[in-house]
Formats: sequence, structure tokens, C-alpha cells
Amino acid sequence: MNDTFLKACRGEEVPYTPVWIMRQAGRYLPEYQAVRANVDFLTLCKTPELAAKVTIQPVERLGVDAAILFSDILVVPEAMGMRLEFSDKGGPVLGEPVRTKAAVDRLTLPDTEDSMPFVIEAIKILRSELKVPLIGFSGAPFTLATYMIEGGGSKTFLHTKKMMFQNPGLFHLLMDKITLSVIAYLSSQIRAGAQAVQLFDTWAGVLGPEDYKEFVLPYVKRTLAELRKEGVPMIYFVNDCAALLKEIRKTGADVVGVDWRIDLKDAIKGLGKKFAVQGNLDPCALFLPPEKLEDKVKAILAKGESAKGHIFNLGHGILPESQVENAIALVEAVHRFSER
Amino acid sequence: MNDTFLKACRGEEVPYTPVWIMRQAGRYLPEYQAVRANVDFLTLCKTPELAAKVTIQPVERLGVDAAILFSDILVVPEAMGMRLEFSDKGGPVLGEPVRTKAAVDRLTLPDTEDSMPFVIEAIKILRSELKVPLIGFSGAPFTLATYMIEGGGSKTFLHTKKMMFQNPGLFHLLMDKITLSVIAYLSSQIRAGAQAVQLFDTWAGVLGPEDYKEFVLPYVKRTLAELRKEGVPMIYFVNDCAALLKEIRKTGADVVGVDWRIDLKDAIKGLGKKFAVQGNLDPCALFLPPEKLEDKVKAILAKGESAKGHIFNLGHGILPESQVENAIALVEAVHRFSER
Repeated sequence: MNDTFLKACRGEEVPYTPVWIMRQAGRYLPEYQAVRANVDFLTLCKTPELAAKVTIQPVERLGVDAAILFSDILVVPEAMGMRLEFSDKGGPVLGEPVRTKAAVDRLTLPDTEDSMPFVIEAIKILRSELKVPLIGFSGAPFTLATYMIEGGGSKTFLHTKKMMFQNPGLFHLLMDKITLSVIAYLSSQIRAGAQAVQLFDTWAGVLGPEDYKEFVLPYVKRTLAELRKEGVPMIYFVNDCAALLKEIRKTGADVVGVDWRIDLKDAIKGLGKKFAVQGNLDPCALFLPPEKLEDKVKAILAKGESAKGHIFNLGHGILPESQVENAIALVEAVHRFSER
Repeated sequence: MNDTFLKACRGEEVPYTPVWIMRQAGRYLPEYQAVRANVDFLTLCKTPELAAKVTIQPVERLGVDAAILFSDILVVPEAMGMRLEFSDKGGPVLGEPVRTKAAVDRLTLPDTEDSMPFVIEAIKILRSELKVPLIGFSGAPFTLATYMIEGGGSKTFLHTKKMMFQNPGLFHLLMDKITLSVIAYLSSQIRAGAQAVQLFDTWAGVLGPEDYKEFVLPYVKRTLAELRKEGVPMIYFVNDCAALLKEIRKTGADVVGVDWRIDLKDAIKGLGKKFAVQGNLDPCALFLPPEKLEDKVKAILAKGESAKGHIFNLGHGILPESQVENAIALVEAVHRFSER
């Protein structure tokens, strides 16, 4: 069992810097595309044997130090009662966006074993097969709220902010319900065998610090405080985190995932000594010539040394256009240059 | 002549904090929509009388302290030889994206009087009619480069970064050509009567500080150094600036435009004492109830006091869905709460 990842999460000594890649199970891998050729995205998420299979693919192909459950953050809103569809072009659609008290009231608190048993099953299969730690995950409450209120992705998040600004009581009610669902969902994942969890707050970076503090932070804190008793490392990733570091310090995460826009040294300085960090190579750096990619890897590894712990990762998900060879080279370079 | 805006740009004493709104001439205004009902967007940009008319509309309607020329940043790539189209849905399209040496070589250095005479004409009309200063503008070299390389908007800027990373020589050649075009374009605007200029670097925030330093900063510096001799205040706006402040300090701008994601206090601290700042209310704050909007205005005004000068603005363009009454209330609140 390779436990380098878990040790780095806890800030313990490691023989080298562990690395995994956000969206490492995905379209850039031919073996993933082979599976997807026969099954649509959502069916793949909901078929434990297949979800487990594609979860394992990048571990074998790239030699990463952690696996992350193959799933999608929107299975939770679906389990709460929304209609979820994926189109290959336009991104996810959640039918009947949640914008009224009645719509919030209609949402249920899902029982993971009942409504998302495929996740539990996939985790159990994975734990019996993996030689690296398995990361469970969920969308963070705010990020899930944006999809539920907008009915899918958004550029301006106008409906979300309208609800926040014009009907804060309703927004808090919705966040409350989502938070309870996320806590239950991640607890179930951990009890089924997930050895760490990551909370993806992909869209929290569209808020200024004051709005983050009022509308996001309390729910992240509560989620992580509740999950604390499960005893596994907790990673909190905010895309576009630079302006929010002072608030992110208060979340209670063990590890903070850092996007690529900020110098990792500045992020560590802004966060303080309490946190391990994860990140933060620009996903587009995988298109660099090999020697330049190595330079970027070395620079990030050097900066990571000032944190309590460092898990190497991209600053956002790997792009479908990436070359597998370059992802392999990245993992190899991280291991080689970080060897103690 | 109301010169409060120009005084604030220079860090001089002002009787109140001046305010204008990015995209203040736009779809949220019924009188703008009335003009657009008869003419497409690009024709509007290229018809001096109409461009001047919609430039003046928000000055009269909102009582802002500055006008900004109605135009689009993509008229420059068009003048350099690209084919430009606007669809009302999908955003701008630049035909035949620039991705090869041959494509870069084909680009011309436009003479503003020859290829964009409508801009010069509009400025002359405006200067004879306006009682507030007129801001000229251009896309910053990097932001123009992204549109030219991607062929329009982008989520990941993969083609741009691919060129930067795989063919930096070609990327620098393109940036060089764009920079010369921008310098000539803004010089012409100033000579025609623009009393300040704003450089919009809408997409520079998708780069980390090291890439910004290598691929963006030299061209912004050169642009602003060349324009310095024209003697008007220069505003540099980077959307998503939080992680780049240390580099933005080196640009030579008089005023730094600050997006809404960062606490204005932190932005001023990161920039240091040399700069006036412009910003930074979340455009969605216009959907707040009046008293809450006033609270946000007061908070930003208080933070702005620690800068060399402060021009109130949104942190990004006003949304088309905004209510005119709320924009009027915003301008009025800024004036009322900032009166010395």
C-alpha cells in the first residue's frame, strides 16, 4: 500500500512528493474513451464495475499516488430530486432550476445507500483492488447551489447572486439543505472506504471575500466540522482562490487545493502554516516541451516545500486534448525531482 | 467641464468620488436598445454619429463623471486584416484564427485614420458635445491575442497557451505586432481628443504570475511607456487581478482597474501607494435592495480612501439584465456618500 498521499495530507515525512491529477480518469485516456464508446456518461457514473474500472485506469497508466472515485458532483442534486441530463456539447442541464421556496421545499435529503448505491458499490470494489489511497469527493455546497439555481453552468451566476442578494433567507435555506446532503453523502463514502475526501468549490471564486464569508464559509466549515469525526484527510479546492485565502483559512480543511493562477508561494503565505497544499500546475503546461515542463515542475516542488505538506496536482482538471505521454512524464518528473 | 474623474486619476483632491460604469453604454438602457433596433452592433460601432449618441446616453441618464467611447476591442484585429463577425447569441467570431507564422506575417499595422476613421470622427463629435471627460480605450495586447488565436472567446485558452508554450517566438512576434497596433490606435484616439485611456486586459487573469511576467507584462509596459508622452491618464484593467498585483505594479499605469473578486483594501495594499484605483463593485450588486446596495457602496468608498485616488466603478461590465433605476441609484449613492 502506497500511503505517500495520505502522509502528505497529514503533513508527515514522505519519501517523495505524491501526485495525482484532477480529472485523471477522463477523455484524454484512450482506455477511458473505449469504455465511453459503449455507455453514456451518467450510466458510466452509475455502473459500479465500470466506474471502478475507469477510476483505476489512470493509476495503472500514469503511476499516480492516489485514485479519485469516478463520478460527477451533480449526482447529489439529482438524488435531491432534480432532473439531470448531460449533453456531450452543451454541458450538464438540471431541469426546473431551484428559484422559489416551493422548489427548495421539494428537495429531499437523500440517503446515499438508497439513492446513490452505485457510489458505495464502486468504493467497495475499488478498495479491494487499489494499491493507492482512494479519494471520495463531492461538490461543495455553494458550487452545487449554483448548478441547482442556474439549471446548469453559467458565466455570470446572475440567478445565484440574485437569490443571495434579494432573498438571502431562501438562499441560506437551500444551502442548509445542500450542506446536510453533502455531509451525509461524504460520510457514506468514507464509511464505505474512501480514505480522504475532496470538496470541489469550483465556483466560489466568483464571489468577493465578503459574500464568500456570508454565504459560503459557514457551510464549508459545517461540512468539514461534521466530517472531522470520520478521521480522514479533507481537501478543499476553490478554483480562483487568490482573493479568498484569508477566508479559506477558516474552513477547517487539512489540505487546500490551489488553482494555477496564483504563485504557490503566495498561496502558502496567504494560508499560513496550518495547511498542506495541493496543486498547482496550469493544465495547459502539459503542452510544454518536456524540458520546460520539468522546469515548471521543479519550481512548484521548490515552492511546495514551505507548506506543511504538498501534494502535486494540476491547478484545475486535465484537458481532454492532453497527450497521455505528457501526463505520464509529469508524474515521473514529480517523483524524480522530489525524491528525498 | 466636470474634471473630477481626471483629478482622481492623477491623485488630486476631489470634491467627491467620481464614478462611471464599464459598459455603461449598453443593452440595459432602453434608449440604447432603441438605436440597436435599427442597426447591428458592428455598424453602430462604425457610424460616428450613432456611436457618439450611445456614448452620451449614459452620461445624461446616469449622471456619471466620465464617458467612454462606444466601440469594441475587436475593431483592431479587424483593421489588422482579420474577418470580424458578431452574432447576438454566440459572441464575436474572428475568421481564420492566427496560429502560424504565415498568419502573423499577413497581419498589417493599421493606420487608424485610414482603417478606423469612425473612431476618430466619433471622438471629435463627442468632445464638442460632452461636459465630462472622454475615455478612449483598447484591448490590451494579450487579450487581443487570445481572440485572434482562439478565433473568438474561449474557456481554456488552449490555443493561446499552446502557442505561448510551444512556439514562444511566434507568440512574441504576434504580441509585438499587436502592441504596435495598440500604441498607434490609442495615440490616435488621444490626438483626436480622448482625455484618458483604458487598456482592457480581460483575459490576462487566466495566466499565472510567471507566464504573465514573460508573455504579457513587457507589452503592457511598452504600450504605456509609449503613450506616456501623450500626457493623459492611463488606466489598466485586468479582470481577475488578485494573483497578479505584484506584476501589475510594474506596468506604469496611473490607475489600476480592480475586478470585484478581491477586497479593494487588499488590492490597494498589494499595489502600493503609487496607483489610483478604479472599481470594484460586483456587477450583480445592482440587484441588491437599495439599502444593501448603499452599504456596499459605502464600504468600497471607505476602502478606496487609502489609495492615491479612487474612481468608483463596477468590477466588470454592467449586465444587460440590470435595471436602469438601480444604475442611477448607484451613481447617486457614490456621489452622496463621498461628498467631502
